[in-house]
Amino acid sequence: MADRLIVIGGDAAGMSAASQARRRRDRDDLEIIAFERGHFTSYSACGIPYWISGLVDYNELIIRDPETHRREHQIDVRLRHEVVKIDLDRREVVARDLENGGREVRESFDELVYAAGAVPTVPDWARTDAGGVFGVQTLDDGKALRHWLEGDPKPKRAVVVGGGYIGVEMAEAMIERGLAVTLVERGEQPMSTVDPDMGRMVRDALDGLGIDVRTGVTITGLTTEGGRVSGVRTSEVTIPADVVVLGTGVRPNVRLAAEAGLPIGPTGGIRTDLRMRVIGAPGVWAAGDCVETLHKTTGQPVYVPLGTHANKQGRVAGINIGGGYATFPGVIGTAVTRVCDLEVARTGLLEPEARIAGFEFITVTVESTSTASYFPDAAKMTVKLIAEKGTGRLLGAQIVGRSQSAKRIDTLAVALWNKMTVDEMSMLDLGYAPPYSPVWDPVLVAARKAVDILHST
Amino acid sequence: MADRLIVIGGDAAGMSAASQARRRRDRDDLEIIAFERGHFTSYSACGIPYWISGLVDYNELIIRDPETHRREHQIDVRLRHEVVKIDLDRREVVARDLENGGREVRESFDELVYAAGAVPTVPDWARTDAGGVFGVQTLDDGKALRHWLEGDPKPKRAVVVGGGYIGVEMAEAMIERGLAVTLVERGEQPMSTVDPDMGRMVRDALDGLGIDVRTGVTITGLTTEGGRVSGVRTSEVTIPADVVVLGTGVRPNVRLAAEAGLPIGPTGGIRTDLRMRVIGAPGVWAAGDCVETLHKTTGQPVYVPLGTHANKQGRVAGINIGGGYATFPGVIGTAVTRVCDLEVARTGLLEPEARIAGFEFITVTVESTSTASYFPDAAKMTVKLIAEKGTGRLLGAQIVGRSQSAKRIDTLAVALWNKMTVDEMSMLDLGYAPPYSPVWDPVLVAARKAVDILHST
Repeated sequence: MADRLIVIGGDAAGMSAASQARRRRDRDDLEIIAFERGHFTSYSACGIPYWISGLVDYNELIIRDPETHRREHQIDVRLRHEVVKIDLDRREVVARDLENGGREVRESFDELVYAAGAVPTVPDWARTDAGGVFGVQTLDDGKALRHWLEGDPKPKRAVVVGGGYIGVEMAEAMIERGLAVTLVERGEQPMSTVDPDMGRMVRDALDGLGIDVRTGVTITGLTTEGGRVSGVRTSEVTIPADVVVLGTGVRPNVRLAAEAGLPIGPTGGIRTDLRMRVIGAPGVWAAGDCVETLHKTTGQPVYVPLGTHANKQGRVAGINIGGGYATFPGVIGTAVTRVCDLEVARTGLLEPEARIAGFEFITVTVESTSTASYFPDAAKMTVKLIAEKGTGRLLGAQIVGRSQSAKRIDTLAVALWNKMTVDEMSMLDLGYAPPYSPVWDPVLVAARKAVDILHST
Repeated sequence: MADRLIVIGGDAAGMSAASQARRRRDRDDLEIIAFERGHFTSYSACGIPYWISGLVDYNELIIRDPETHRREHQIDVRLRHEVVKIDLDRREVVARDLENGGREVRESFDELVYAAGAVPTVPDWARTDAGGVFGVQTLDDGKALRHWLEGDPKPKRAVVVGGGYIGVEMAEAMIERGLAVTLVERGEQPMSTVDPDMGRMVRDALDGLGIDVRTGVTITGLTTEGGRVSGVRTSEVTIPADVVVLGTGVRPNVRLAAEAGLPIGPTGGIRTDLRMRVIGAPGVWAAGDCVETLHKTTGQPVYVPLGTHANKQGRVAGINIGGGYATFPGVIGTAVTRVCDLEVARTGLLEPEARIAGFEFITVTVESTSTASYFPDAAKMTVKLIAEKGTGRLLGAQIVGRSQSAKRIDTLAVALWNKMTVDEMSMLDLGYAPPYSPVWDPVLVAARKAVDILHST
């Protein structure tokens, strides 16, 4: 008789695991059931801002629909089914069919993949029965927001809360839809995923788009009118709003896992080993936005909910379930985003993160161009490096610049991944031609300057 | 009394060495004389094609002019002075002043930097007294070509010989100037710096520009008319030409060095240690297009005349002369170029190079996009990897693609530099956001596929 794999969560991590397991074990050997609470499988949540702005169509965000999973991978995908209980002793799950009055189904498993993702952090002040307050974490969230934006009366003023990636991307999307946009951030600068000295450049770009950026602001509540949101109250003023978008982050969706006794780590995510096995729970795997992972630079567990990790972790779990061997080695905190034509990227640790980890370090910031400086419209590019005192080891890097800047973070990411020192980095053999870089690539210029500082301290 | 440093060659390597030495030792401690045969110092030879095409002005290619070197670095730059002899026993050089009837000057040195660069490989058939045949290696070469192109009668038909970087870039520059262009390449495909399967895509791009590409063709001679070139003879036909540009490569300019008894390696370049000291010649340094260097992947000496290496090697020599410590660790063969809007890049070894080095390997080629595939105008990108059998270590990588493709070679270059295996690479934490990459970056997709192949062989 075939084993049975049950997957909880039909997005990147869960469906990658399912597909990989299927590649290695056919249906006579492994039956696969995937429960998904929403209406979609395997979609690019990171693309939602570009759908809201109108740049892409929502169905383009769906990488693989349920029918394809069923037909090509013989995966029994059950949409609108919310798993409500995991019973590890009886090795079964209980799911509720949300379309049929909550009818419960009970299915046993040999292997279980927990890939329930993340849930948005909803601040207390944002809990309201009034319409017009949205997260943008799932495609279902995005649909609800689009519907509101196109509704009657048409919203004209948006407040976006939180200046991280999602907040900044959503603020831009709203501006592109013609709304007046206020971005509210608690910290010193928007784009809190880079240090404030780099974030200042992002703020300038947001200003340039006509976004009203307010930093150092704490929100205290909402005002409503006729069942609709009408404003966001801060300690000082009330900002009028017909729609409020929450970019206040997410936390791992682990309630079910915790109830079943699966181990939750210090970050709030599920603890797994390098093969994505849940610690202490044979036959149970976890992957994606619900797990914590190793930060390779600090050696500490960290929670980094990103599609790129979810895909890899799901793949790793699936290969192992399929009888292969794969490990997920951890992360180094690489991320990129775009604000209008400004590109923003980071890898490794920010200054405060490096300090908390116990490192002493030097920092260096250089301005260069992403092409030869004499090239027409040579694009400005700022590179910041953080290097350990003494060893000179690269601990973190940040880039803010125009065209062709952001993906240079990968060069720095691979250097950091390999524990390179800025000394070694300054002699790296990188590609040079005038349309692509000055003869000293900005990455090399930064490394060179870091060497000078290290040698003079 | 101050020591004296003499530098032979006033371009990237020589002047980097001079400037770095000056940064560490003031004029009371070190006198610096630099002899340069041509009219310019410290310029971007790689920018010449973009000057010929009219994209940039030639004076923008000059990074630092002689006057700046004299004023800011107190370097006694002597233009139009050709060094004709190095006497190691007497520790002096003899230079000829080309502007003053060849008057000879004799200067002693304590330290000598030999940075005489490269000389173009001129095939026998190209030696002619007729006008219209040009190399494009120096700014002086570029000036002569520009003059011819703007002369009377105005050339209408160009033949570019050699399908390497320079040839391809020059062919494009000529097309942009409105000439009819034929590109003649001896090998199977143009862009011989990548494997033929990748070169085929470059050929398509050249075809698209209207360049008449002829491969597998051997040139036998020139035809001339009234003291001007009129055509290029091949074994089969004569191709009419009012101007012929040689992109037939360069070789190290080592005549003087060899006459002085400095050691020449198997590649024809001068042999140095990692600090850029000429082997067995105390106080003599060499850097740039006249030296051979270590290929970090094969462990063999290699000749790679590129501005990026020249700058680094010059810097290393200068730091050491200045009393600091620096080494040039070698190269891995990274290079990028652009053909119209097609981006071409490589790092590490091509297939035949890997074979000659003694490696057994697998290759993998994947097609992907440089942004999320659902992004408007998602640009196609092809990645080829060469990985060692057994270990899975990356040996080489090639990229051909549209926008945002080429500089991804740096990600692969740093991975290769650090001897990463494709297994490790497939889990790298690279930047992901829809404007910059699919959720699996093309680099990761290629690594993943290489892993599959390695595990199945």
